[in-house]
Amino acid sequence: MTPSRSMEYRRRLDALVKELVERDLDLVLLFDRDNVRYFTGFRLNRVANSILAVDRDGSVTYVVARLDLKRAKRDCWIENITSFPEDTLDYLSVLKPTLNGSSRRVGVETDVLTVRQAEDLKTLAGDKLELVDVRGATQKLRAIKSQEEIAHIRQAARIADEVMEQIRKEIRPGAIEAELVGKTEYLIRQAAPEGPSFEPFMMSGQDAWLPRRVVSAKPLQQGELVLLDMGALYEGYCSDLTRTFAVGAASDAQRRLFQVAFEAHQAAVAAIRPGATAGEVDAAARQVIEAEGWGQYFPHLTGHGVGLSIHEPPIVDKEVDTVLQPGMVTTVEPGIYLPGVGAARVEDMVLITSSGYDVLTTAGRELA
Amino acid sequence: MTPSRSMEYRRRLDALVKELVERDLDLVLLFDRDNVRYFTGFRLNRVANSILAVDRDGSVTYVVARLDLKRAKRDCWIENITSFPEDTLDYLSVLKPTLNGSSRRVGVETDVLTVRQAEDLKTLAGDKLELVDVRGATQKLRAIKSQEEIAHIRQAARIADEVMEQIRKEIRPGAIEAELVGKTEYLIRQAAPEGPSFEPFMMSGQDAWLPRRVVSAKPLQQGELVLLDMGALYEGYCSDLTRTFAVGAASDAQRRLFQVAFEAHQAAVAAIRPGATAGEVDAAARQVIEAEGWGQYFPHLTGHGVGLSIHEPPIVDKEVDTVLQPGMVTTVEPGIYLPGVGAARVEDMVLITSSGYDVLTTAGRELA
Repeated sequence: MTPSRSMEYRRRLDALVKELVERDLDLVLLFDRDNVRYFTGFRLNRVANSILAVDRDGSVTYVVARLDLKRAKRDCWIENITSFPEDTLDYLSVLKPTLNGSSRRVGVETDVLTVRQAEDLKTLAGDKLELVDVRGATQKLRAIKSQEEIAHIRQAARIADEVMEQIRKEIRPGAIEAELVGKTEYLIRQAAPEGPSFEPFMMSGQDAWLPRRVVSAKPLQQGELVLLDMGALYEGYCSDLTRTFAVGAASDAQRRLFQVAFEAHQAAVAAIRPGATAGEVDAAARQVIEAEGWGQYFPHLTGHGVGLSIHEPPIVDKEVDTVLQPGMVTTVEPGIYLPGVGAARVEDMVLITSSGYDVLTTAGRELA
Repeated sequence: MTPSRSMEYRRRLDALVKELVERDLDLVLLFDRDNVRYFTGFRLNRVANSILAVDRDGSVTYVVARLDLKRAKRDCWIENITSFPEDTLDYLSVLKPTLNGSSRRVGVETDVLTVRQAEDLKTLAGDKLELVDVRGATQKLRAIKSQEEIAHIRQAARIADEVMEQIRKEIRPGAIEAELVGKTEYLIRQAAPEGPSFEPFMMSGQDAWLPRRVVSAKPLQQGELVLLDMGALYEGYCSDLTRTFAVGAASDAQRRLFQVAFEAHQAAVAAIRPGATAGEVDAAARQVIEAEGWGQYFPHLTGHGVGLSIHEPPIVDKEVDTVLQPGMVTTVEPGIYLPGVGAARVEDMVLITSSGYDVLTTAGRELA
């Protein structure tokens, strides 16, 4: 940990403390693993738990599983690190000293904290605890990426681009979806030890327009469209990239389908600028697809923020009034799933800049 | 879906309804993905959400994301399937008709349901809702595996065994941990389209005795012990397997370390029988390690149940009074992390049978 990096984390924590004071909270308890990593910089096993307690006086306690304690003390910038035993349900008892003080109004992520954890916290604090949702504060801080974060996201995007180009070469009749997904994971893991940002999936043939969204052992067949959605995790930051390929020559109907999906993608990207709302960007994509009469075959959002989490604000969907700001990163991924023809989706990651946008992913977008 | 398989799911649901009546519940709402899959048999993308609503009259509603609706209607045995839009926080509103009826006492998984979801449910039901923890009921049903489940677990174990034997051949100075983990994932994915049951990790050298528990780009070095923990997912069922290897010739101290860990493992396996408590099995392992004076270097449990979840009951740890029964499956994995020497752990999966036990994983256990 270089001094400049630990200063970046301290700066993030100071910003959280400011939010905490503004919200008249005594303490914040973070359980969400991406939120915790944002402030600690500490990477955990994907199934491990940890808790970050931040007091309004700026003091911080980091609680990790016993198995992670030595590594956390070696690698994490936070001084006060303690541990709970693994695989026990009463691990919150380690928070008793923290909660027994003057803490009354405690900020938590109500979309992550479970009913049982909330009950345990109230029992520990003698029922005088008021739990207040603090997700708005962490979302506000995390939505605007720092230069360091953008550098990590760019690297994650670069790795996804390179792997996508490799896999494109493997698209042929008889290739097995699960085999290609395995190769995708393998290539990602070689370039990024943290591995894929989510389980990649490939969908071909009629399972693509269903859609299927899970990996199968289906072989690719001549005349099918194939969709691959994947990404890498670099220093905790995600990339997210989708390309559509044709197995052999695409039919006219498939080419038209792809063309409309790609035009919708380009219209949405062109609508991105600081000050635009997420809903305006969504509308730009949706109008292209609706003009073709295919609105009902575009059953999802146009995009979502990407950072430490694979899905985070801003959400780019119908009528969302979030105002885009420089430093935000979002995907653009309108998709069309047309029965009898195929699925087509081009997904890129886009950074909002002070003058407009910067498309972070560059893998070839052509159908074949 | 064959008729016999859908009968197995109906039988599971009937058992749940019986628990529901015994607990005087009107309705159960399941959010935990492994619980939902136990009753639906339906596989989802790892980040997708779904909800299963089971009424005390035996009627069932399955709620999936809009993108999964067509596939669920095609592949899932349940007749009443509905959907919520993705990426919106108010998706619980689809449950309004279900909750507006006579439901008062509703069973939920309090270790999965979030504070926000609980608030949303209460708002939907007009605050007359009493949420009751129902985890005990689903744990009771899932702890004893059926013949069909055991067959899936055996297949997941076989895949892990075969991949472990492949990776053993790749252990040599200079091999990169992340590369070997990538190969592990790739080989698993080829044999099991659902992929690994968890992110595999390899730890070597001093990071092993720390321990590290996350994948890194560290190269293996002559004279190190290396630990690989991995498993496959087959039809939703997990395997979990650890082996310890020596890079080159092990030192006497490393051989002694491995020997004690392996003897602890064998003592625990030998203690498994129907009627024994989980705590007795744990004590058998712990005594071997403590007799060597290394108790403090064994900082975790001896084992955990495995099934649709990678960690589930029974938990085999200090003083746990769970009574082992035929049809339960547990890991046995005492580990020793000795500073300056290395980490040693042998992990196998064990089925409790009517006469004793059956070790499900068979990959070679030798150090080199």
